Amino acid sequence: MKDRALRAIAECRLIATMSEEPHRTTRRFLTPPMHDVHRHLQARMHELGMTTSVDGAGNMHGMLQPAGTPGKRLILGSHLDTVPDAGAFDGVLGVILGIEWVALARDLELPIPIEVVAFSEEEGVRFGAPFLGSRATAGVFDSGLLAAVDAQGVRMADAIRAFGIDPATIDDAGVGKDVFGFIEIHIEQGPVLEGVNLPLAVVEGIVGQSRLELQFTGEANHAGSTPMHLRRDALAAAAEWITAVESSVRNAVLRQEAGLVATVGHIELEPNAENVIPGLVRATLDVRHMDSQVRSQWSAELVRIASSIAARREIGFTFTQRLDQREVKMDAYLSSCLLDALGAAGYPLMTMPSGAGHDAMIMAAKVPSAMLFLRSLRGISHNPAESVLADDVEAALNVGREFLLRIAEDFG
Amino acid sequence: MKDRALRAIAECRLIATMSEEPHRTTRRFLTPPMHDVHRHLQARMHELGMTTSVDGAGNMHGMLQPAGTPGKRLILGSHLDTVPDAGAFDGVLGVILGIEWVALARDLELPIPIEVVAFSEEEGVRFGAPFLGSRATAGVFDSGLLAAVDAQGVRMADAIRAFGIDPATIDDAGVGKDVFGFIEIHIEQGPVLEGVNLPLAVVEGIVGQSRLELQFTGEANHAGSTPMHLRRDALAAAAEWITAVESSVRNAVLRQEAGLVATVGHIELEPNAENVIPGLVRATLDVRHMDSQVRSQWSAELVRIASSIAARREIGFTFTQRLDQREVKMDAYLSSCLLDALGAAGYPLMTMPSGAGHDAMIMAAKVPSAMLFLRSLRGISHNPAESVLADDVEAALNVGREFLLRIAEDFG
Repeated sequence: MKDRALRAIAECRLIATMSEEPHRTTRRFLTPPMHDVHRHLQARMHELGMTTSVDGAGNMHGMLQPAGTPGKRLILGSHLDTVPDAGAFDGVLGVILGIEWVALARDLELPIPIEVVAFSEEEGVRFGAPFLGSRATAGVFDSGLLAAVDAQGVRMADAIRAFGIDPATIDDAGVGKDVFGFIEIHIEQGPVLEGVNLPLAVVEGIVGQSRLELQFTGEANHAGSTPMHLRRDALAAAAEWITAVESSVRNAVLRQEAGLVATVGHIELEPNAENVIPGLVRATLDVRHMDSQVRSQWSAELVRIASSIAARREIGFTFTQRLDQREVKMDAYLSSCLLDALGAAGYPLMTMPSGAGHDAMIMAAKVPSAMLFLRSLRGISHNPAESVLADDVEAALNVGREFLLRIAEDFG
Repeated sequence: MKDRALRAIAECRLIATMSEEPHRTTRRFLTPPMHDVHRHLQARMHELGMTTSVDGAGNMHGMLQPAGTPGKRLILGSHLDTVPDAGAFDGVLGVILGIEWVALARDLELPIPIEVVAFSEEEGVRFGAPFLGSRATAGVFDSGLLAAVDAQGVRMADAIRAFGIDPATIDDAGVGKDVFGFIEIHIEQGPVLEGVNLPLAVVEGIVGQSRLELQFTGEANHAGSTPMHLRRDALAAAAEWITAVESSVRNAVLRQEAGLVATVGHIELEPNAENVIPGLVRATLDVRHMDSQVRSQWSAELVRIASSIAARREIGFTFTQRLDQREVKMDAYLSSCLLDALGAAGYPLMTMPSGAGHDAMIMAAKVPSAMLFLRSLRGISHNPAESVLADDVEAALNVGREFLLRIAEDFG
């Protein structure tokens, strides 16, 4: 397995060189280097006896159909597109390990039809809309998006055509009822597994997400001529609130709400001049948790804290909720098979929620879906420093072997 | 006096219509509407028997020289330029009241030579450098500034020429030893006088100013996949510090350090994305006080607080001091004359520092200088809503009368 693991890592590193830009990895939806990746994967899939195709959304498919196997198939995969200046493993590793799991199934002569799907788009970089590939595969692609325009003014429909595909076939990309399930292997993109020193985790689900915008309205005034007690400083109010967000959510995590996270990631000040007391602050709040009730209770509580701080300071306060996205639970049966496989392969059992969205979240609306996370070194992702341990990749292969052996019985 | 006060206000409102832009007041250094203002003031000065001139920096001068008076003269004045979308009183009121004080001296037949100076530039809007008019008058104009370029690409020397002046004469604009003193009347541009319900204050001096830039360096990370206890959130650190700046300076003011102000007015986040934990925050700190020692002690204390918050959070911290400008004390003799006049005219005695810079701060380097503040309604300035009470303008005239009567003895 060590050799297979090292080969998988080398494959990811090689694919990282197929880029829109020299010396760094940027590979957006339907850009020329995506052809290079397809050609490369096609060769490897053909070696394994798979048939290959590209669908109307630019997703690449490889199919292993052992003689005499039933109709329902297992789908493995992840995405091939990247953020600008990306690492080598986000998405791509899930495609490469999908192919390696197929190689294992073939070596074991398991009677499982397996499809590997390499989604064309997940990051949302080129057209500002994410999960385009898995949306098409899950049959929930909004055809209005075909009119979306990228930064160069190219319409999505024309980009699909330029890639050599008829955009009218995008509706045919959707899977039918002949799918047994979908498994996505992905790097964690966070520090949790490294923190507990474990290679792998089975993902319970994708957390739900609230996004709010809060506005504190004080009074802009001269920084020199306004005494401290006569100020209505919008930034001082926002700062008190940001401090309270952090401390109250940290306390909640310690007490009961494991996994709750809240982030103030974006701030705008007016006038934002060093010699003027800030008159207005707009701040975003991102709250995530696996349980919708916990998430909405805490969104409301953090808004209540802001409102009360603003009222005490005679600062105006308004907020708007911009996103209220429910959690998506992974399939219980497939997840328990992955967990059994983890144990059988000799690794400690570990489950965790995913704080980020993934293609499996979209696929789950259509087919039973589950996910396996690999430890991210230092939790780094969306960065050239993104890395994985060869031992962890080997673990993902060992777990794949055990998982496929278990699943094979259900195809019997 | 009521009529004179109403006329002074009407004059300011009329001059506010002499603007670069229709329907709002914007009058930058040496722009065409400045000619209109000069023509208007010239007519009024000639009525009072004053001789007028414009110097090499575009400052307008009017001189009342009663027959048989000695050589040393009193200078009164302020600036004629404005910020964009300005109010009607910032600067202009000091010029108009200077002329009204001349009218009072003339009516009283006081043997005082009085010059009114209407500075061409104080706000620093057009060339990014403030106090150009008073710098030339005080003989501290840096001729390197003549090469500065405005937003339209016009060099300052060419702007002076286009206004009809030979820029070579700018060095002749400096006053000599034949000046008794300089008095500037100005709106407070802050809420202090309104807060204590008083019309006027004698200005003790212009506070000193420290400006620093602080940088908090944490780690940018995914807002969903990074648990609270594994974050190094640069904004959470900065927010805790901003809260501490406000509370510690408020407490210091209550305990002992009257007049101390500290402001965080400008913040920049990286990456400033709503779903990413802030990795870096740059913040400015502006600290002002009349006493250099208090100011530098508190600048150091606020940096120490930032450094200690950052260290506890394992956040990187650096800072640079960008400005360390000493306070400028107003002339004790002229200030006590103003204060005597305040009492003699029947107004409560009030002194206060100026938190903002003024032409008197520049003039003080060359000639004994003092300032009289008028209450600003709601503390508003640099805004069309800027306003003054007619009663307060009348008070400034009554104080002027008493002041001139006292000063006249020293010219005897």
